[in-house]
Amino acid sequence: MEYRWEKDSLGEKAVPRDAYYGIHALRAQENFPVSGQKPHRELLWALGVVKQAVAAANTAVGLLPPEKGEAIQRAAAEFAEGRFDDQILVDAYAGGAGTPLNLNVNEVIANRALELLGQEKGSYDIIHPLEHVNLSSSTNDVFPTAVRIAAIRMVRRLSQAMARLQGALQTKEKAFAAVLKVGRTEMQDAVPITLGQEFGAWAEAVARDWWRLYKAEERLRQVNLGGTAVGTGLNASRRYIQVANEKLRELTGFGVARAENLVEATQNTDILAEVSGLVKTAAVNLAKIASDLRFLSSGPRAGIGELRLPAVQVGSSIMPGKVNPVIPEMVTQVAIQAMASDVSVSQACAWGNLELNPFLPLIAHNLLHSMEMLSNAATLLAERCVAGIEADRERCEDLLHRSCSLITAFVPYIGYEKAAEIVQQALATNRRVEEVLLQEKIFTPEEIAAITAPAEVTSPGIAGVRFIAKRKKLFNSKEGEPHGSKS
Amino acid sequence: MEYRWEKDSLGEKAVPRDAYYGIHALRAQENFPVSGQKPHRELLWALGVVKQAVAAANTAVGLLPPEKGEAIQRAAAEFAEGRFDDQILVDAYAGGAGTPLNLNVNEVIANRALELLGQEKGSYDIIHPLEHVNLSSSTNDVFPTAVRIAAIRMVRRLSQAMARLQGALQTKEKAFAAVLKVGRTEMQDAVPITLGQEFGAWAEAVARDWWRLYKAEERLRQVNLGGTAVGTGLNASRRYIQVANEKLRELTGFGVARAENLVEATQNTDILAEVSGLVKTAAVNLAKIASDLRFLSSGPRAGIGELRLPAVQVGSSIMPGKVNPVIPEMVTQVAIQAMASDVSVSQACAWGNLELNPFLPLIAHNLLHSMEMLSNAATLLAERCVAGIEADRERCEDLLHRSCSLITAFVPYIGYEKAAEIVQQALATNRRVEEVLLQEKIFTPEEIAAITAPAEVTSPGIAGVRFIAKRKKLFNSKEGEPHGSKS
Amino acid sequence: MEYRWEKDSLGEKAVPRDAYYGIHALRAQENFPVSGQKPHRELLWALGVVKQAVAAANTAVGLLPPEKGEAIQRAAAEFAEGRFDDQILVDAYAGGAGTPLNLNVNEVIANRALELLGQEKGSYDIIHPLEHVNLSSSTNDVFPTAVRIAAIRMVRRLSQAMARLQGALQTKEKAFAAVLKVGRTEMQDAVPITLGQEFGAWAEAVARDWWRLYKAEERLRQVNLGGTAVGTGLNASRRYIQVANEKLRELTGFGVARAENLVEATQNTDILAEVSGLVKTAAVNLAKIASDLRFLSSGPRAGIGELRLPAVQVGSSIMPGKVNPVIPEMVTQVAIQAMASDVSVSQACAWGNLELNPFLPLIAHNLLHSMEMLSNAATLLAERCVAGIEADRERCEDLLHRSCSLITAFVPYIGYEKAAEIVQQALATNRRVEEVLLQEKIFTPEEIAAITAPAEVTSPGIAGVRFIAKRKKLFNSKEGEPHGSKS
Amino acid sequence: MEYRWEKDSLGEKAVPRDAYYGIHALRAQENFPVSGQKPHRELLWALGVVKQAVAAANTAVGLLPPEKGEAIQRAAAEFAEGRFDDQILVDAYAGGAGTPLNLNVNEVIANRALELLGQEKGSYDIIHPLEHVNLSSSTNDVFPTAVRIAAIRMVRRLSQAMARLQGALQTKEKAFAAVLKVGRTEMQDAVPITLGQEFGAWAEAVARDWWRLYKAEERLRQVNLGGTAVGTGLNASRRYIQVANEKLRELTGFGVARAENLVEATQNTDILAEVSGLVKTAAVNLAKIASDLRFLSSGPRAGIGELRLPAVQVGSSIMPGKVNPVIPEMVTQVAIQAMASDVSVSQACAWGNLELNPFLPLIAHNLLHSMEMLSNAATLLAERCVAGIEADRERCEDLLHRSCSLITAFVPYIGYEKAAEIVQQALATNRRVEEVLLQEKIFTPEEIAAITAPAEVTSPGIAGVRFIAKRKKLFNSKEGEPHGSKS
Repeated sequence: MEYRWEKDSLGEKAVPRDAYYGIHALRAQENFPVSGQKPHRELLWALGVVKQAVAAANTAVGLLPPEKGEAIQRAAAEFAEGRFDDQILVDAYAGGAGTPLNLNVNEVIANRALELLGQEKGSYDIIHPLEHVNLSSSTNDVFPTAVRIAAIRMVRRLSQAMARLQGALQTKEKAFAAVLKVGRTEMQDAVPITLGQEFGAWAEAVARDWWRLYKAEERLRQVNLGGTAVGTGLNASRRYIQVANEKLRELTGFGVARAENLVEATQNTDILAEVSGLVKTAAVNLAKIASDLRFLSSGPRAGIGELRLPAVQVGSSIMPGKVNPVIPEMVTQVAIQAMASDVSVSQACAWGNLELNPFLPLIAHNLLHSMEMLSNAATLLAERCVAGIEADRERCEDLLHRSCSLITAFVPYIGYEKAAEIVQQALATNRRVEEVLLQEKIFTPEEIAAITAPAEVTSPGIAGVRFIAKRKKLFNSKEGEPHGSKS
Repeated sequence: MEYRWEKDSLGEKAVPRDAYYGIHALRAQENFPVSGQKPHRELLWALGVVKQAVAAANTAVGLLPPEKGEAIQRAAAEFAEGRFDDQILVDAYAGGAGTPLNLNVNEVIANRALELLGQEKGSYDIIHPLEHVNLSSSTNDVFPTAVRIAAIRMVRRLSQAMARLQGALQTKEKAFAAVLKVGRTEMQDAVPITLGQEFGAWAEAVARDWWRLYKAEERLRQVNLGGTAVGTGLNASRRYIQVANEKLRELTGFGVARAENLVEATQNTDILAEVSGLVKTAAVNLAKIASDLRFLSSGPRAGIGELRLPAVQVGSSIMPGKVNPVIPEMVTQVAIQAMASDVSVSQACAWGNLELNPFLPLIAHNLLHSMEMLSNAATLLAERCVAGIEADRERCEDLLHRSCSLITAFVPYIGYEKAAEIVQQALATNRRVEEVLLQEKIFTPEEIAAITAPAEVTSPGIAGVRFIAKRKKLFNSKEGEPHGSKS
Repeated sequence: MEYRWEKDSLGEKAVPRDAYYGIHALRAQENFPVSGQKPHRELLWALGVVKQAVAAANTAVGLLPPEKGEAIQRAAAEFAEGRFDDQILVDAYAGGAGTPLNLNVNEVIANRALELLGQEKGSYDIIHPLEHVNLSSSTNDVFPTAVRIAAIRMVRRLSQAMARLQGALQTKEKAFAAVLKVGRTEMQDAVPITLGQEFGAWAEAVARDWWRLYKAEERLRQVNLGGTAVGTGLNASRRYIQVANEKLRELTGFGVARAENLVEATQNTDILAEVSGLVKTAAVNLAKIASDLRFLSSGPRAGIGELRLPAVQVGSSIMPGKVNPVIPEMVTQVAIQAMASDVSVSQACAWGNLELNPFLPLIAHNLLHSMEMLSNAATLLAERCVAGIEADRERCEDLLHRSCSLITAFVPYIGYEKAAEIVQQALATNRRVEEVLLQEKIFTPEEIAAITAPAEVTSPGIAGVRFIAKRKKLFNSKEGEPHGSKS
Repeated sequence: MEYRWEKDSLGEKAVPRDAYYGIHALRAQENFPVSGQKPHRELLWALGVVKQAVAAANTAVGLLPPEKGEAIQRAAAEFAEGRFDDQILVDAYAGGAGTPLNLNVNEVIANRALELLGQEKGSYDIIHPLEHVNLSSSTNDVFPTAVRIAAIRMVRRLSQAMARLQGALQTKEKAFAAVLKVGRTEMQDAVPITLGQEFGAWAEAVARDWWRLYKAEERLRQVNLGGTAVGTGLNASRRYIQVANEKLRELTGFGVARAENLVEATQNTDILAEVSGLVKTAAVNLAKIASDLRFLSSGPRAGIGELRLPAVQVGSSIMPGKVNPVIPEMVTQVAIQAMASDVSVSQACAWGNLELNPFLPLIAHNLLHSMEMLSNAATLLAERCVAGIEADRERCEDLLHRSCSLITAFVPYIGYEKAAEIVQQALATNRRVEEVLLQEKIFTPEEIAAITAPAEVTSPGIAGVRFIAKRKKLFNSKEGEPHGSKS
């Protein structure tokens, strides 16, 4: 291979002649063979875009001559698109608060710009990674700005994925609106509910996630571009700062704006901890839903079996015919990981020092990766699981009637203690509570039917009260108080 | 001791005759000797208030006769105030999704109501913990509602504490506005900043916490009171539900409202995970600030020593005269704990099942306790530390000039690489960079003074450009491009 | 109230004349009204014991006159027993690396010793909290030593609790050894297993916890007593150090020994992070077991219902007769909290600085509290749940036969793909797999009986091979390979 | 592209004719486009090795004909080496408890074996992924076994990396043994210490990690190979089980053995949670050391500056000459991530259900990845940072003498309170404590020199006592008690 020589304040290194990266990237490669993971693609995109805005602003205010400025902008745009990702040698876990990555990006853009100008790579006297590409800027404003831009893109994606999942759940909410089944609290048989209500409850939680994440974008819009090293803006002219932020707004289409206080926007990462907390909340909901799906589809024959999840993968290498809830399991795994990532993000934010958080690369990596995985998981859950879920209506009905959960509907008529006795009798004699109530002659069959009508037991009010109360006092009105009424 | 006998569906137990609690509380005491911690005081307050609203609504819709209804309301109000906290035998970590605590509260209120009516404790035929106190309600709507009410109270308190801390930091921001000092990124000397800017950055982060927590209240206002066992509202009449929520609004003065979807509001806890995430974010900021304070006040003589924290506690049992940053250390501990509590809350939320989250007691305990501790920590930080902080101005000035950080201001004139050489020379010869620049005759003393003027180096733009550019080209304008300008 | 005046280097304060605590405690009370929680009782015990050892050693080497030395020892012993816990004003979350607590303890012991000598409290010229009680020692050796001593006591307690739980599970393992039931992987019906095997698997995991925690004690035995401020032992004579550690060994009965490297034992807390990790592991097992118990006892009628947990608490304030798995739920809560506490411990350990970890109070509080709660939870699980668990044998049998899980036993004879077809047929036609196999004339009834015999399907080997292989080739031996054999 | 058709119980799919993977892999690819991350290389290695052992055992006991058996073994060995990693389409976060990955591996090995036999890929009638490659085994024994094998390999690597770091630290311990400096507790000046002692303390903690991780291997050696689906060993003959485990031992060279209780070894993952806790503990130590290094090297001029870390990367894109502690920062990031990974592992372990933990893929991914990153981080820390650290001896000396920390050595002579006064005087008048002591005529210059001699102040005992005590009583012996003595 042929080489060119590059130098920095630590010495010289031979760089492959064709490489867009330079000496800083090579040093980073030696210093940080840590995880084998590259920085997140969206972060690279965002860095490219920010570099483009910086170059555009430097050109506009006359700090860069048009030809060079345009070459840099075009190179940065190409970098943003992902054309030079293989030229990034910096590990996602590199130290240095993003500086090694920023230097690597500067090098790639400088060399690509040189190439566009028909120059040899490494002709840094013409276009220099620091003097020209990094002009008026610093890792410490470029990198935090890029992290927020990337986070906006991912938070939109996650928000949309949650909306899609909400839609899938709502479709089933409607489809299963009439499937009456036993409710369960603490895994024990409880009062009746409809399967539609269960899907509706999941949909509602997911809807909140959608909304939360949609609103989270606002928090991310304040950027510190122009703050340079510590947010004071040293070496960045006011005009440049203004134009750079305008260009960034244009290039991204996001409503980003320069933070009022650039010093604080440079050092504080609490907004990322906050957004991470919202992402974690989505993970919490997904974990809960996945867990419910696994429970309700347990079986197929020796479990709950109220739901049938679509079979998407053979479930065992030894047990023929076994099909597992692999999509919910994947969702659970992603959710557990996302919750743990939030711990990493929070800790890394808390470990910040003074004018800068040195651990921003870690924060960004976790946050972007979590959002990506949750987006994928939510989409897969919607499309490969929820959309194909079927209810086993007979099973739902069977379990409901086998349970004693309908007794609660009778409490307003007979009181809690009497009702508890009925349940104990039913359990001891292996009968349904309705049978016991009938046999004890507490209610007529018509009364029982009126009280246990699906619409009565799954909506607010005392079940059957309009029908029964004509003939019977409510338990609590034995001293003559007026009745509670269903509607 | 004298006893009365009480029974439940599991059997009979002797209860001390004077006790307001009853058999359910006794069972809980036997079942859950776990942590020795009582449920949080604000949760007990909230349960009392919710019980009061329930009784008021039951009375208003005619389910309870006025005399009983009023006795129950008054007993509940007294309970809310904390008069019977010693009658709560249920551990904070009890299982049962809050049922044991709700039953214990029902018993205490029933017996206190009986007492108010001049009746013997235990006369449950007159006022029954379940038939009367719990009428129209369920643990599963009362408890989640109480948790949210309690959380609103605590989130307000925490929000105010953060506002107070913000105020204290801003006072110092103003006081130290003119204290020029070295900035530090990655703990290494960086470009100059003012001490006021540092306090201002902390204040801004804390201001965001204040606002976040203030807004968090909105998320907590949807309650599921009236949803009873699984949110379907079985046994709670629509009119009761409406009145109960109105009463709750009145009694608390909070803008609480019945959730649209009671089924989901009964089972989902993501809003608590979300609020916990915001609380965690406040902890992140407090940890960062406390860590900075410890660093900047390190010494007093062999450390950074730019700040002097007020001495509030003798610092060593063996080293005389030692004073430690005990308030920031306490803050760090509370912050670490609050971040870990968020893990507990998130996990407990994720472990929810179907129609209910059985681990709501754990969630509530962590969330309320975190908010309480952070409120106290923020207030103590404001009052016992920040308010008394003094700057060592000489030390700040000395360190600034000893550092090479001013070199960055010269980069626009001499370029990055030349500047790096100057720094290496300065470090190698133990001189200030200004000296080297002077000796190398790159700048005159006047130029150096113009470039390093405090206002120039701590605000956006190229330092000294108005003065220098008359005589010197900027480095990047060597090809004749127009200059960047300070304003 | 009457007062005495005390002073420290920060000034003077009035102390209630009868108080055993002094000015340092009062300052701590003002500085740290944080959590309302006292330091853990076992920590106070340990501090008392360490103080006793220190005083004994100071006396033995002649640094304290016998009369004073004995008074201090007796006072320390009384303090260890808990007689003066109300004199501890320091919050569990106080800053200062334990110094405020150590100073408070010194004061209490000094004043109690004075009292024992017939002197007025506050006569510090006779016995001084620092000059005499703290003689030859420092918070920085006393406190870490006490934390380890306390941890040994708690780790023993937890270890024993796990052993007790193991015993309870093993009793059931034996009782349920013959209860054949369906296995479940990923909540889906899998090959048969016995209920005894399930309890045995839980017991084994718990046995590992017992052993792990038992062995953990070894890690805690190296103490830094004698290291004084930073582990160099300044101001503590070698003889004193030797005697102090001997006395500590005597007083505790634990095999504690002075660490080889006192500097490192003073600053590093990784052993506590390690032990916390072991405690967390116990929590993981408890959570898993509790979750399985909740699943298997779900119902009673519309769930799995293979197990019946003892009813220990009425389960609902609205649903009569409902009984919940409250003990496992409590266990889950404690386990979640213990896992989160491990996060707090780990973070606090990681945040240590140089010669000392300032956050040792937080570490100790979490670690001791976790161990206490887990001990209680494990004991309650053993005694109030596992001991009373009953199997619903009919239900187990019914579910096993309803499932298709026996098909796996036929795979060696018919191959995986054919077996998968049989299952699909069985599911589609709502029949048992045995019926399909019979109808398809693949096996005779005798062969099916031989293959599905309980002992055959729950132990290693190809089920029924000794009986069947006489007449049938195994699927994989169709090319004439010799058979696999059951034994 | 040309295709072959494959089918499973869910239907048919076209597979590229040249692909080694098959239909199960394709389904997994569609089902789990989650993270873009492949399963960890060491896990793939381990799966290959386990498959090889399984095939060898099946061959040995006559279940597979030699030719086929050998082809499978050779294919598995090649797979273990990594030759077919690109044929693994299963995402690291796939659901299904490892089944999709196991099926994918089976397919690759079957097709490679076919190729080795000169057969067309897809000729499953000759060698079938399930009937032959998976013969006598199940994902549920193969996968947990592979995870442990992989973990052993990684835990060895991490253990060695920690040993290397220990060595690097010890080299510096020796080199800096005579560098006297101020100790710091709670970031405040404390009694003297040597820089060697500081490096020694870090080395000791790291040595414990080395040992812990070395011992952890023992915990991982019990495998459940032969347990098949739920640990009962159904379909695996006793002889096969024995041979398979022997082969595994041979192939790996690790002392692995069949677990006593295969049922429990199949379902419980607490050993992985335990090992993860030990890995976390290493992370805790690394984080603490990295943080100390960053503190001690802060500056170069306006910080502590006692240490100079080797410059390995240009530190700023805007501030020339800035060099940051990038290696310790990387270490901190990796440590934070590893601690968070432990949360993920623990939670995933706790979420296990009954006979299997469905989240084992997540557990494995986190654990292996953490160990890999920590190994790399520790090695880089040793080689690229610690090995090149230089002490600024003058700075150490200067700071020591500027501090008041030597006062503690005088306490045994003048008492704590007098000493505190001296410190206050020194601080107020900006003098050294020695000057004040001299001026107050409490000690002669010779006495001061004797007391503050380096060897005296950094080792146990009362500094200077042999020299001083001839002429002066110790403070506590004013009543005539014999003195404490240095040796």
